[in-house]
Amino acid sequence: MSETVDLNEYEVGYDIPAKPGMDESDIQTPCLILDLDALERNVKKMGDLAKEMGVRHRAHGKMHKSVDVAKLQETMGASVGVCCQKVSEAETFVRGGIKDVMVSNQVRDPAKIDRLAKMPKLGARILVCVDDPENVADLSAAAMKHGTQLECLVEIDCGAGRCGVSSSQEVVNIAKLIDSAVGLKFAGIQAYQGAMQHMDLYSDRKDKIDIAIDMVENAMTALKSQGLECDIVGGGGTGSYYFEGTSGVYNELQCGSYAFMDADYGRILDKDGKRIDEGEWENSLFILTSVMSHSKTDLAIVDAGLKAQSVDSGLPTVFGRDDKVEYLKCSDEHGVVADPDSVLQVNDKLKLVPGHCDPTCNVHDWYVGVRGGKVESVWPVSARGRAY
Amino acid sequence: MSETVDLNEYEVGYDIPAKPGMDESDIQTPCLILDLDALERNVKKMGDLAKEMGVRHRAHGKMHKSVDVAKLQETMGASVGVCCQKVSEAETFVRGGIKDVMVSNQVRDPAKIDRLAKMPKLGARILVCVDDPENVADLSAAAMKHGTQLECLVEIDCGAGRCGVSSSQEVVNIAKLIDSAVGLKFAGIQAYQGAMQHMDLYSDRKDKIDIAIDMVENAMTALKSQGLECDIVGGGGTGSYYFEGTSGVYNELQCGSYAFMDADYGRILDKDGKRIDEGEWENSLFILTSVMSHSKTDLAIVDAGLKAQSVDSGLPTVFGRDDKVEYLKCSDEHGVVADPDSVLQVNDKLKLVPGHCDPTCNVHDWYVGVRGGKVESVWPVSARGRAY
Repeated sequence: MSETVDLNEYEVGYDIPAKPGMDESDIQTPCLILDLDALERNVKKMGDLAKEMGVRHRAHGKMHKSVDVAKLQETMGASVGVCCQKVSEAETFVRGGIKDVMVSNQVRDPAKIDRLAKMPKLGARILVCVDDPENVADLSAAAMKHGTQLECLVEIDCGAGRCGVSSSQEVVNIAKLIDSAVGLKFAGIQAYQGAMQHMDLYSDRKDKIDIAIDMVENAMTALKSQGLECDIVGGGGTGSYYFEGTSGVYNELQCGSYAFMDADYGRILDKDGKRIDEGEWENSLFILTSVMSHSKTDLAIVDAGLKAQSVDSGLPTVFGRDDKVEYLKCSDEHGVVADPDSVLQVNDKLKLVPGHCDPTCNVHDWYVGVRGGKVESVWPVSARGRAY
Repeated sequence: MSETVDLNEYEVGYDIPAKPGMDESDIQTPCLILDLDALERNVKKMGDLAKEMGVRHRAHGKMHKSVDVAKLQETMGASVGVCCQKVSEAETFVRGGIKDVMVSNQVRDPAKIDRLAKMPKLGARILVCVDDPENVADLSAAAMKHGTQLECLVEIDCGAGRCGVSSSQEVVNIAKLIDSAVGLKFAGIQAYQGAMQHMDLYSDRKDKIDIAIDMVENAMTALKSQGLECDIVGGGGTGSYYFEGTSGVYNELQCGSYAFMDADYGRILDKDGKRIDEGEWENSLFILTSVMSHSKTDLAIVDAGLKAQSVDSGLPTVFGRDDKVEYLKCSDEHGVVADPDSVLQVNDKLKLVPGHCDPTCNVHDWYVGVRGGKVESVWPVSARGRAY
């Protein structure tokens, strides 16, 4: 399938929720909308913060899965390419024109390794993470087969409890294997602490990241003793980037959610005890939903349920209202909204801040960009469904 | 966009997880696979059960969103068309060749009503639910505009607490409006009790459905006193179909999950106290996932996380193993699997029974049908993303 999208091929209300030029009020729901002004402010701010801290920012494309958003992050937020999590996502970004793509994850399936090793032929720098010595030979053989180079980072599990090695000795062992493997280049360390990003308290997050920074520093010392330098020491998310960015150890941040925000991230507190969605970052992503039934006076039923979002990190919140309207629960196709004062009418629209942006974006095919009451852009969720 | 799919246009590992003829072992993960033998047995069984009870079965297409599965349900399970929940879903089924389509939901947005009223021109019978007198005039105007007929059911809220009216008087009021509206035909009652389907105990489910059946019976009596007959009295799901089917009141069942099953439904108990996934229905739907990291001896990390499923009704279970392998938790791209005896290796595959089939199907683009170790069919999730 082509990566280029001709919106003329799509029918509003069947394939697509809106087309550029439409009034915001005519958007078909449920769908994702982007407040383009807020999005651009978030993107620019993170680029500026990274520059101030003297580190690079490689925006995480797994969050939005969108070539258009990735390009905005490059041009307006000084992002050095993208990170992503799957080979098919990387292919989407490379085919879409991103020239520096890191798969911040392990690639083990032989067919996936082969696809990964082919990608540099499309003119992109390709980076991938390794946490098992056995993976090195497979990556090397594929790179040799295609006459390409893959840049490899050793992944450290610095607290997330998923992929990654746990000791400096393992880091050095794998790094040396990479360094001596044909077709591979040792590129550094990947150390993302995913498990602490959503802790409410700044001090709790700092305690966790201090442990991670120590692990990374120890690994770098061990690598240096073997003559191995890290081009990239990568990690950091929306709940932690200031720690990694000022650590003197990390040199590349990998934030994703900051661009869109969500309800679960919004609740965490900054160093002054203020929610991060009250000043640090703006909500730019919303699920637009319509009231479709109001047969009980105190409840409105809206058209965004489980198929319009992921509720793994909690329910969405209703944005921009100071009344008692509240999203209470949902089933597959319906959201039940408290409306104790009966202020809502059928066909009224609500903007919902999703509980968790990444998997919510992954159930939608389109981002409808709005500005000044008009639809300005309709961007595909380019890598949606590309989970391979 | 066309409804016909030419698999030659899709690239395995980028757009699509497999192609027909491939070995099952070469399927790219994570993806949905269907055990076609089990699926066909489930589909045939529900058709036979409905016939035995002397009622029709209109399979619920919102669960699978697949034209191919809907056609299998018609040919092998005697399903009389489909139900679905959204206008764009209905369009998908009609364009795909299903001739009798009920939107078992309210349609209120003017653009959606217009699309709905156009659909009979494609040669299909179109049914829709109503729970508000104000909706009748809008539906009628659209049907008149397009010179079509919409068949309308009055929806009763018989316990789900979502859409639907609560009294027989309201049923009669709306039915009379429908009956006298140009372009509309009064078709009966929609009364699906969604809130009780997942109650564990048969007796608890029966208590709830008895209330629903009473409500429906009262409404039918009130309608009859006004000279209004119900062509369709519809409802019933995988956790309740035997109650509605033998009620003497309902005449059309609307089961969805029975065809695929999931972990949340599997746990409910039949009248003998036996889980319904132990004899009544077979698991035919699985998330196929691969081990992609095993750097801790007691944990395997698999490639199916939040973007390969919906965990709203709990985590997936690992299918067909008698060891201690267990899916413990997940993040966006990863599943953490307990493997206390280190029996798994990198690239080993697991079949996961999703917690909740409907929203899990909605994050995937394809169903890979397998039989005898080979990929036999690759079906699009035709209405995926069609939430409008």
